[in-house]
Amino acid sequence: MNSSSDRGASATLRADQRAADQLRAVRITRHYTVHAEGSVLIEFGRTRVLCTASVEERVPPHKKGSGEGWVTAEYGMLPRSTHTRSDREAARGKQNGRTQEIQRLIGRSLRAVFDLKALGERTITLDCDVLQADGGTRTAAITGAWVAAQDAVNTLIAQGKLTTSPIIAPVAAVSVGIVEGQALLDLEYTEDSACDTDMNVVMTVNAAGEGHYIEVQGTAEGAAFSRKEMDALLALAEKGIHELVALQRQALAA
Amino acid sequence: MNSSSDRGASATLRADQRAADQLRAVRITRHYTVHAEGSVLIEFGRTRVLCTASVEERVPPHKKGSGEGWVTAEYGMLPRSTHTRSDREAARGKQNGRTQEIQRLIGRSLRAVFDLKALGERTITLDCDVLQADGGTRTAAITGAWVAAQDAVNTLIAQGKLTTSPIIAPVAAVSVGIVEGQALLDLEYTEDSACDTDMNVVMTVNAAGEGHYIEVQGTAEGAAFSRKEMDALLALAEKGIHELVALQRQALAA
Amino acid sequence: MNSSSDRGASATLRADQRAADQLRAVRITRHYTVHAEGSVLIEFGRTRVLCTASVEERVPPHKKGSGEGWVTAEYGMLPRSTHTRSDREAARGKQNGRTQEIQRLIGRSLRAVFDLKALGERTITLDCDVLQADGGTRTAAITGAWVAAQDAVNTLIAQGKLTTSPIIAPVAAVSVGIVEGQALLDLEYTEDSACDTDMNVVMTVNAAGEGHYIEVQGTAEGAAFSRKEMDALLALAEKGIHELVALQRQALAA
Amino acid sequence: MNSSSDRGASATLRADQRAADQLRAVRITRHYTVHAEGSVLIEFGRTRVLCTASVEERVPPHKKGSGEGWVTAEYGMLPRSTHTRSDREAARGKQNGRTQEIQRLIGRSLRAVFDLKALGERTITLDCDVLQADGGTRTAAITGAWVAAQDAVNTLIAQGKLTTSPIIAPVAAVSVGIVEGQALLDLEYTEDSACDTDMNVVMTVNAAGEGHYIEVQGTAEGAAFSRKEMDALLALAEKGIHELVALQRQALAA
Amino acid sequence: MNSSSDRGASATLRADQRAADQLRAVRITRHYTVHAEGSVLIEFGRTRVLCTASVEERVPPHKKGSGEGWVTAEYGMLPRSTHTRSDREAARGKQNGRTQEIQRLIGRSLRAVFDLKALGERTITLDCDVLQADGGTRTAAITGAWVAAQDAVNTLIAQGKLTTSPIIAPVAAVSVGIVEGQALLDLEYTEDSACDTDMNVVMTVNAAGEGHYIEVQGTAEGAAFSRKEMDALLALAEKGIHELVALQRQALAA
Amino acid sequence: MNSSSDRGASATLRADQRAADQLRAVRITRHYTVHAEGSVLIEFGRTRVLCTASVEERVPPHKKGSGEGWVTAEYGMLPRSTHTRSDREAARGKQNGRTQEIQRLIGRSLRAVFDLKALGERTITLDCDVLQADGGTRTAAITGAWVAAQDAVNTLIAQGKLTTSPIIAPVAAVSVGIVEGQALLDLEYTEDSACDTDMNVVMTVNAAGEGHYIEVQGTAEGAAFSRKEMDALLALAEKGIHELVALQRQALAA
Repeated sequence: MNSSSDRGASATLRADQRAADQLRAVRITRHYTVHAEGSVLIEFGRTRVLCTASVEERVPPHKKGSGEGWVTAEYGMLPRSTHTRSDREAARGKQNGRTQEIQRLIGRSLRAVFDLKALGERTITLDCDVLQADGGTRTAAITGAWVAAQDAVNTLIAQGKLTTSPIIAPVAAVSVGIVEGQALLDLEYTEDSACDTDMNVVMTVNAAGEGHYIEVQGTAEGAAFSRKEMDALLALAEKGIHELVALQRQALAA
Repeated sequence: MNSSSDRGASATLRADQRAADQLRAVRITRHYTVHAEGSVLIEFGRTRVLCTASVEERVPPHKKGSGEGWVTAEYGMLPRSTHTRSDREAARGKQNGRTQEIQRLIGRSLRAVFDLKALGERTITLDCDVLQADGGTRTAAITGAWVAAQDAVNTLIAQGKLTTSPIIAPVAAVSVGIVEGQALLDLEYTEDSACDTDMNVVMTVNAAGEGHYIEVQGTAEGAAFSRKEMDALLALAEKGIHELVALQRQALAA
Repeated sequence: MNSSSDRGASATLRADQRAADQLRAVRITRHYTVHAEGSVLIEFGRTRVLCTASVEERVPPHKKGSGEGWVTAEYGMLPRSTHTRSDREAARGKQNGRTQEIQRLIGRSLRAVFDLKALGERTITLDCDVLQADGGTRTAAITGAWVAAQDAVNTLIAQGKLTTSPIIAPVAAVSVGIVEGQALLDLEYTEDSACDTDMNVVMTVNAAGEGHYIEVQGTAEGAAFSRKEMDALLALAEKGIHELVALQRQALAA
Repeated sequence: MNSSSDRGASATLRADQRAADQLRAVRITRHYTVHAEGSVLIEFGRTRVLCTASVEERVPPHKKGSGEGWVTAEYGMLPRSTHTRSDREAARGKQNGRTQEIQRLIGRSLRAVFDLKALGERTITLDCDVLQADGGTRTAAITGAWVAAQDAVNTLIAQGKLTTSPIIAPVAAVSVGIVEGQALLDLEYTEDSACDTDMNVVMTVNAAGEGHYIEVQGTAEGAAFSRKEMDALLALAEKGIHELVALQRQALAA
Repeated sequence: MNSSSDRGASATLRADQRAADQLRAVRITRHYTVHAEGSVLIEFGRTRVLCTASVEERVPPHKKGSGEGWVTAEYGMLPRSTHTRSDREAARGKQNGRTQEIQRLIGRSLRAVFDLKALGERTITLDCDVLQADGGTRTAAITGAWVAAQDAVNTLIAQGKLTTSPIIAPVAAVSVGIVEGQALLDLEYTEDSACDTDMNVVMTVNAAGEGHYIEVQGTAEGAAFSRKEMDALLALAEKGIHELVALQRQALAA
Repeated sequence: MNSSSDRGASATLRADQRAADQLRAVRITRHYTVHAEGSVLIEFGRTRVLCTASVEERVPPHKKGSGEGWVTAEYGMLPRSTHTRSDREAARGKQNGRTQEIQRLIGRSLRAVFDLKALGERTITLDCDVLQADGGTRTAAITGAWVAAQDAVNTLIAQGKLTTSPIIAPVAAVSVGIVEGQALLDLEYTEDSACDTDMNVVMTVNAAGEGHYIEVQGTAEGAAFSRKEMDALLALAEKGIHELVALQRQALAA
């Protein structure tokens, strides 16, 4: 699927001349806003998500007195981050099912790489707000939120509130999908709309450089997909995750 | 993972003497209530879900005038279907994120095997209400909802409103997970609580008897999981799905 | 009204050949689900209500520190328990007025036979969920909830948390109404829809075997009703209550 | 119960020297506010309820195209109409169960004396707002709302929109209860709080001067009540209703 | 603008023969209802607002342990206080933006003249409910609420809970506007609807008899307004406030 | 107040060495996001608000068939745009009073400079989302929203949907306040928190270069303010508005 002839095919397929197994241009801007302990603008092509990490010295009821902290996430899209304006969820009076699904996914993904004991009884809230949407907002959000969380932890260490980091490993996410029979990495909106299968993969990379899954969510939008197709998608995702983790490290080193 | 020695291991592991690759006792009772066009009580061991299929001769706004129908699902748990009583969502005034995730999943899974054009401008609503929960409520719901949908379609055909079935293929779902390093099929509640990885797999089986994925949702609850573990889980799930589809057919033939 | 010639008349009137003063077939199934301290499926003909009694070792704010317990009820109908599908209250985001009226009635009725002091600072919540509706769901709910409450109290006694029962007396409920000029006991849905007057009567029976009223709610749906008609209805209800209390005792003795 | 010796007893019992079978001072002020088609301040002693009748030339969906009109009611208490301040329902974001029960009762009671066909496709909304509460707010509301409805109908006739009144008969309501073993008419707040049984009776009076029941709602707050007690209460209520209907007529004649 | 010739002009303009700089008839009725610590019906012409002041011996969370009290306000309109019936906010499930704006304004205005320290850890809630609306409901509410607050403070002093008044100064409010080029004081509804500019002014008057602003809210409904027009409006408002404060004092002296 | 000696005083007062009558650095970035018809990031110092203008070819019910269009606004703050994290309004399920006040203010301010007839039956929605808050978010929002509205109108003209602009005049807004006795222009957060009086002024500037008021909202946070102080504030605001309008024009010319 990633052979050079496939790439030639994808070059004609993808709007932006990307190869089938190529990420969009990824940009990670730290310290994007001033108040949050961590604040990252992450861009996957035209998708732009502002991820802030806020530290609060309290935990939700189910963690009180446990000696453990909590990591949670909230997600939102600005009403005109999309092609046509969507209702503002605050005005409508509730978050829709998609929003809740995504923020639960982000929260689980980040908690998977946190040692909550080492965090101590405090909460880190990751607010992921989409300024501009062009596909892959949830994967950009996870990838950016991890960088924001790192900055928040660095703030806690600088303040002397922590001595070592409670973050165990990196986490990043990417979408993959099958469009007109071809497996593609990091779908933009038009590809996402046209795809038969859409899969979001969240992975961590261990010290030995091996990827492990934290979440896999695949959905047949059109035709059901075979095991062979799934294998192709999982391989593509793993390639993308390794690149994203490298980009996260680069951003943090800057 | 499915070798006989593994089974020996699982026999000691599982509370009910099940083998690692064995489904719980599945019972499908059709015509469980009298008013709905389709009404099925499905039991996966102690998990009991009432699935009703209701036909209404109208469609939601986004389908009006399209010539197409709609298939949707709602999910709920009775407050004391669980070990300790949960708040009644109607009293609290909103459905929580988990409920919304599950009902969206059931809806997508059923729509994946429906020809909405062939259904005509009408709606089938699948209400999946958990009377007793012991793990796997969403997978039981999908599996039972498909049988209820079949009965509703049969009703429409009997009424002369449809001449052929808009249902293209069967759909069933099962959970798999890794508990203490072992891949298990169809987790009951205590296994689900203890597992490191939990995966729900929704599949259809085509005329040639081949399984294809409709949804795959895997989550690392504890440690992240490797590609090898994922492969074991997918194989186990596929085995279970084939058995469930056979049980659905049997129930419909009765 | 209960003379033999009337019975002849009612035999032609009622769909199921019931006499005017005859209850539908009542079935009480204890231990219907496994998690609740009390769990009863009660059937009045085709009306089926699942009543669970859940014990929690805490009380609402207005009882804190009072040394008294609390007994409360919640009521719901599954969306397709009725002839045509109703909106799911959890999805709509609120319980309607009818639901609230009924659950308040069930709660008051049960509290009327409880010694809250003897219960101690704990709460029994009676969840009454209608699986199938054919008239009389609230009266079935009260009658079944009392049996579930008994089982919950027995559980508390078995656990050594109580030494004597805080339940003072039985409580049961039945509907009566005037249909085409005739007073009928225990209306099913088609009778309920056609009746001019609809009355729900909740009673207790004391040690001397005398019935006393806990609630009487009569409504003229069509023509207003005379004192003479009310007297006929009250007599009919009392007869039904005595039979229901006998059936409750029988179920608990089983 | 109404013998002179009883009255002697009640004279010592009731705070305001009323006899057991005596209404509080009832005042009915028409045209209390200027905008509504009917606007009545009704006072039962210190209980004061403002009842407005608003006419709108449209009907709710279930009456559209039926040729029939609709009569409905809403009820509210000002936050400090009571001894201690209650939460404002608008601020809390929902009407509680008691409010809904009462407004449903008022609506049913008024509809029972309306010929909806003769009203034509328009809606009369009766807003009953409690300015000051001292027991019996729902019975005062029904009694006052009927006068407001009359004024609204008179307005429609004066405007030439109706030629004859769609109001078939009067409707009034009163509470009765058993306090320390004695049956009392028209309970004020302190009596209501102390009573063992509380009953609200809504009646109409036909051309022959005979009372008929529209609603009877009796609740045992303390001990359950016997048939003999119920008979005493019903008699007392009927006496009060006849007096209230006379007062309504007097107010309309003024 | 207040010259005698202007007055002649306004005499022809205003429906009720008022001069341009003349308040409507203001009536302040204390002790309008019996339960509240302060209860005032205030009338600005046909506008009638019931203002109650309720004292509670607790404070909101942000004042707990501060040694300071709190003063807050809630506002509502009865559904048919207006020309055509408005939805009941309690039924609709939320207060609209206008309601919230007004109650926040009333709360701020009253707090501006309270020494919260001297009040002690208790809350005074001012409920301002519009019985009849004809323009200027928020200004009448503020003016009446201050009198109700005085009565509540007097109650606290009479009860020995306070020794001196925490009220520092009077506060009153009035609307002014430009209608057909002329600046008018205290707009009634028809003037308010027709005006180009609408301004609400809340002022206090110090011991020296000098007015100071607490709130100024001016809005161009039609054409934007010049500095000269603003000056005319501010002068008119100040005149009205001095008169209202005199009327408040008179009412309290009665 | 604007004399050179005052400036000397303010130089010591203001954190950023600004003069008392000096705006913060204002930056207006057009085309900040790609989907909206108008998209402007406006910065008043560290305050950053994203203002998008969305065009929809439909109007709200009250404008249907009127031949007129509608202009409205919504406002929100990202949870961590502030010093400490605020609850997300979408998660809490409602917009608070402050949010509603601000979005109503923005909507009125923009409508004041729109000829709704010339706009035709379409709606322009101005979404003002605060990315970073440091005082003056509502005034920045109004000032930026007007530029976004211009871009949206230009888009409509470019698409041939409009031939002339329905925008009659510019509108801009600024805050002024009295801090430690000194009148200051364009308060940043720390000044806003410390001020005795806070005033937001919305103005338009006509062809002759004269400023006219659209909204004036002044609040005494601490001490009530005198007429003389109000005059100083109004002068300061007018100066700021003229500068902001010049900056808007510059941005549109770029």
